[in-house]
Amino acid sequence: MEQLSIIGGDNRQKHAALIKAKSGTHVQTYGLKISTHHENITTCLTLSPELFNSKVIMLPVPYKNHEGGINIIDQREHLETETLFRLMKPNTIVIYGKQDEEILELSKKYSIHSYDIVQEETFSILNAIPTAEGAIQRAMERTDFTLHGSKALILGYGRIGKVLARMLYGIGAKVAVEARKTEDLVWIEQSGYTAVPLDKLDSIIVEQDIIFNTVPALILNRNRLKKVRQDCIIIDLASSPGGVDFQAATEFGLSASLDLGLPGFVAPRTAAEIICRVTDEILERHI
Amino acid sequence: MEQLSIIGGDNRQKHAALIKAKSGTHVQTYGLKISTHHENITTCLTLSPELFNSKVIMLPVPYKNHEGGINIIDQREHLETETLFRLMKPNTIVIYGKQDEEILELSKKYSIHSYDIVQEETFSILNAIPTAEGAIQRAMERTDFTLHGSKALILGYGRIGKVLARMLYGIGAKVAVEARKTEDLVWIEQSGYTAVPLDKLDSIIVEQDIIFNTVPALILNRNRLKKVRQDCIIIDLASSPGGVDFQAATEFGLSASLDLGLPGFVAPRTAAEIICRVTDEILERHI
Amino acid sequence: MEQLSIIGGDNRQKHAALIKAKSGTHVQTYGLKISTHHENITTCLTLSPELFNSKVIMLPVPYKNHEGGINIIDQREHLETETLFRLMKPNTIVIYGKQDEEILELSKKYSIHSYDIVQEETFSILNAIPTAEGAIQRAMERTDFTLHGSKALILGYGRIGKVLARMLYGIGAKVAVEARKTEDLVWIEQSGYTAVPLDKLDSIIVEQDIIFNTVPALILNRNRLKKVRQDCIIIDLASSPGGVDFQAATEFGLSASLDLGLPGFVAPRTAAEIICRVTDEILERHI
Amino acid sequence: MEQLSIIGGDNRQKHAALIKAKSGTHVQTYGLKISTHHENITTCLTLSPELFNSKVIMLPVPYKNHEGGINIIDQREHLETETLFRLMKPNTIVIYGKQDEEILELSKKYSIHSYDIVQEETFSILNAIPTAEGAIQRAMERTDFTLHGSKALILGYGRIGKVLARMLYGIGAKVAVEARKTEDLVWIEQSGYTAVPLDKLDSIIVEQDIIFNTVPALILNRNRLKKVRQDCIIIDLASSPGGVDFQAATEFGLSASLDLGLPGFVAPRTAAEIICRVTDEILERHI
Repeated sequence: MEQLSIIGGDNRQKHAALIKAKSGTHVQTYGLKISTHHENITTCLTLSPELFNSKVIMLPVPYKNHEGGINIIDQREHLETETLFRLMKPNTIVIYGKQDEEILELSKKYSIHSYDIVQEETFSILNAIPTAEGAIQRAMERTDFTLHGSKALILGYGRIGKVLARMLYGIGAKVAVEARKTEDLVWIEQSGYTAVPLDKLDSIIVEQDIIFNTVPALILNRNRLKKVRQDCIIIDLASSPGGVDFQAATEFGLSASLDLGLPGFVAPRTAAEIICRVTDEILERHI
Repeated sequence: MEQLSIIGGDNRQKHAALIKAKSGTHVQTYGLKISTHHENITTCLTLSPELFNSKVIMLPVPYKNHEGGINIIDQREHLETETLFRLMKPNTIVIYGKQDEEILELSKKYSIHSYDIVQEETFSILNAIPTAEGAIQRAMERTDFTLHGSKALILGYGRIGKVLARMLYGIGAKVAVEARKTEDLVWIEQSGYTAVPLDKLDSIIVEQDIIFNTVPALILNRNRLKKVRQDCIIIDLASSPGGVDFQAATEFGLSASLDLGLPGFVAPRTAAEIICRVTDEILERHI
Repeated sequence: MEQLSIIGGDNRQKHAALIKAKSGTHVQTYGLKISTHHENITTCLTLSPELFNSKVIMLPVPYKNHEGGINIIDQREHLETETLFRLMKPNTIVIYGKQDEEILELSKKYSIHSYDIVQEETFSILNAIPTAEGAIQRAMERTDFTLHGSKALILGYGRIGKVLARMLYGIGAKVAVEARKTEDLVWIEQSGYTAVPLDKLDSIIVEQDIIFNTVPALILNRNRLKKVRQDCIIIDLASSPGGVDFQAATEFGLSASLDLGLPGFVAPRTAAEIICRVTDEILERHI
Repeated sequence: MEQLSIIGGDNRQKHAALIKAKSGTHVQTYGLKISTHHENITTCLTLSPELFNSKVIMLPVPYKNHEGGINIIDQREHLETETLFRLMKPNTIVIYGKQDEEILELSKKYSIHSYDIVQEETFSILNAIPTAEGAIQRAMERTDFTLHGSKALILGYGRIGKVLARMLYGIGAKVAVEARKTEDLVWIEQSGYTAVPLDKLDSIIVEQDIIFNTVPALILNRNRLKKVRQDCIIIDLASSPGGVDFQAATEFGLSASLDLGLPGFVAPRTAAEIICRVTDEILERHI
């Protein structure tokens, strides 16, 4: 890649700019305050034409903020997605996060090749690592006991559940994993963890020191939270609406938190490396 | 144990009071503000006689503060060790941390059976767990990358080095361990880590993402720090004088910290469980 | 299960008979010489009617031998599948291994509920354990070096590949795994093994001490075998036609073997437990 | 090393000859039938003078056989140790196994620098690997169940116990380890195994599938063997007199075996690499 433009984003995009600059790519940025200087990085203060000379443009992950504009954090500004797309040259490649109707239609309208990085398998698997490690960091920070020797329950055995289980086991926790599929339960069991089918959850939940949820469904409802120990720590990693009835948790005086976007918070450099790696994979495939 | 007195200390002693109270022991405390109420805990506001009716008295770990008095944190007060010992009945059992001349002489003079918990093998091994896990927590907090996949070097292969190596390996780090004894180097190698004899240290230090020191000797001196990568994170776990030339580290702009007493900070409940377990072992042996 | 009939089979069926007998089931057998006596086991010397009074009949895995008859090992006899089915009562449940046209048609014709245990997911996963452990045993027997510290390559990352990789890693081998799917390669990498995409296979194959194949396709062809080290051990676990050009291997003087049906050979008791467990699952579902 | 003479020995010495020959050393052998030809290996049919021109002479491990002569296996011959030493030049370096009075006195008398490889720490640790792996191979061969998921008890937590525990755990066994020292018990516990102090041995022994002994003392005596399950497999790795009352085991119909010298049997090439590595260490130190 000779030239890359990065518009908006957070610490991950800053690290991505540096990684790419160090490997020889000329990087133009807009709406991203990078404190480390590098000769290959040019900061644009306006949406100047050179930004759109790049064959590849990187947008934030997720690309949109809650107000519906491009997810620019370092700058007070509302930037419509279409404003950007209108400035792009046809056949530009756009790498972004979290697809929706708008970006699909704009891509069509302006003949842009847009790729949602979040839907890439490599991204999901690799991202599970900083997510799991971040969850462990949060757990360590919020507990007054060691994870080693503690009883830790993971709800769900998808990518994050798998990595989290192995790391907790590696630290020395007594790991139990809840899953629905028979196939998963057998794998869990033979990995050395306690396999918990859904109908056994209520009985095993009683004795846990810490519970991690990775399932995007209300699995820790009021009834189950009632059974949880008073000093149990609950960490929800599942995207909206999440898996915990937080109102009930508050009522019962339980310590529960929703931790989304952990990679960007706890390991932005690793998260940036993942974004760059997957971007390279997409570009290779594109050609 | 029917009755236990706890004088001074930190979060670990608070948790110890609760653990003992929950298991049926009557606990008197002095100089320790415990927020959780329990019917078996009595808080003494003066050095009242009932404190000294207990067969067993628990002092802080370490028992002395920098001013030479009993290590009371929750209360502004200078309490001489001899003041306490004068009030004790002969044959009282005192469990404390970090032996010195003074406590040995006082024990003799007042016929007290005093035991330094820090010198107990079980204590040292068990305490290595919250120390290592605390070091990992600190490392996670201070890095912008994941430990998984990173290059981590441990200096020293004593108790903490051993536990730390296994945990880092369990998380997925690429672990190298420096040791002096041939026996240790062979064990390191066959545990799946990279074994680093002292004369290879200078060459391997260049490529590390993170370095943990557990050796109480100036191993990371000015010359070696010069070779360390600019973005390497250094965590020193060795007691005074420590193993890092911090002045040189500051000059070179390196991120180095001294983390002592981690168990009390990151896992006071576990640390308290260890204190209680070792106390029980001492008492069993005493009888 | 009150009553069970077992017709034909090998050591696995003998152990299954004992397991069931010990748990209180009355077991009738035909064509199976069990040396251990148990009061709940009745040996039938002819295809007597009591065999067909059982609601459940267990056939061998695979149920058919090379001559097309029921897979009876302990007795010289050709027994047609239809001969058996004709004697069964309608609605009998038959548990067998390796489905084909004949058994499907006979099941229909005689109104038999037949279940191919080999197609059950639980069976495949659980069976991967004795298969992988058996492969390790064969490797240990055939090598004059330790697996610990050796370079071991696994071709394929399905069920057997996964379990085998973890076990070899647990023993201390340097594990590399070849896979085709990107998703698999990322998992392999982050499990601590070397991930080998197919186009890198030729270069990595050169340095291996031992190669396990789990892929049912001619992956170790003449060209690749040429590159293998003279003292490399090759173990093929893939069912017919297998993944090794054995003729070429012989020409090149390489030590290669085809090891099929390992569970029955190296761990018949475990294999029997798996058959019984999956049978129970099938029966539960059937009701 | 320019020249090396190897006199007597088994498969390990044959592999050692090949290893050294391949790395450029001229190797003279006597009483060792090596089937693989190598230009750097000269086979002497008599105790010819060239054998004693080497600065270094390698003897078997152990150097003596039961008749008190040099441990020559490939040749019917009784060779007195003194016969050999009389032919050596003063200051020759002799590497051998298992020291006794005789070799010490002969070394003095003929001014020979003799080194017992068995007493080298590196040797003991490294040799624990093929010993443990060999024990696992024997266990796999003698059981009709998988080690994965089985209950395995190890008696003793020295070098072999440590390596064996980790390997069994890595395969997926449920590992318990008996030890005497408190320090060891704490390490065992925090490694994820069940720690068994001697006074708990009798109760835990009842439920084991397989027991490995590494303690050179009669730990599995008649009383304990009585409690062992009928189908339990016992593997004794401890040198004479061993840790099992074999007569009682036979009476009770238990399957017990004494497996000594496993490295030479199951992994002679690895054992030879260890001998060569330790020999090099000794020579370096000698200079």
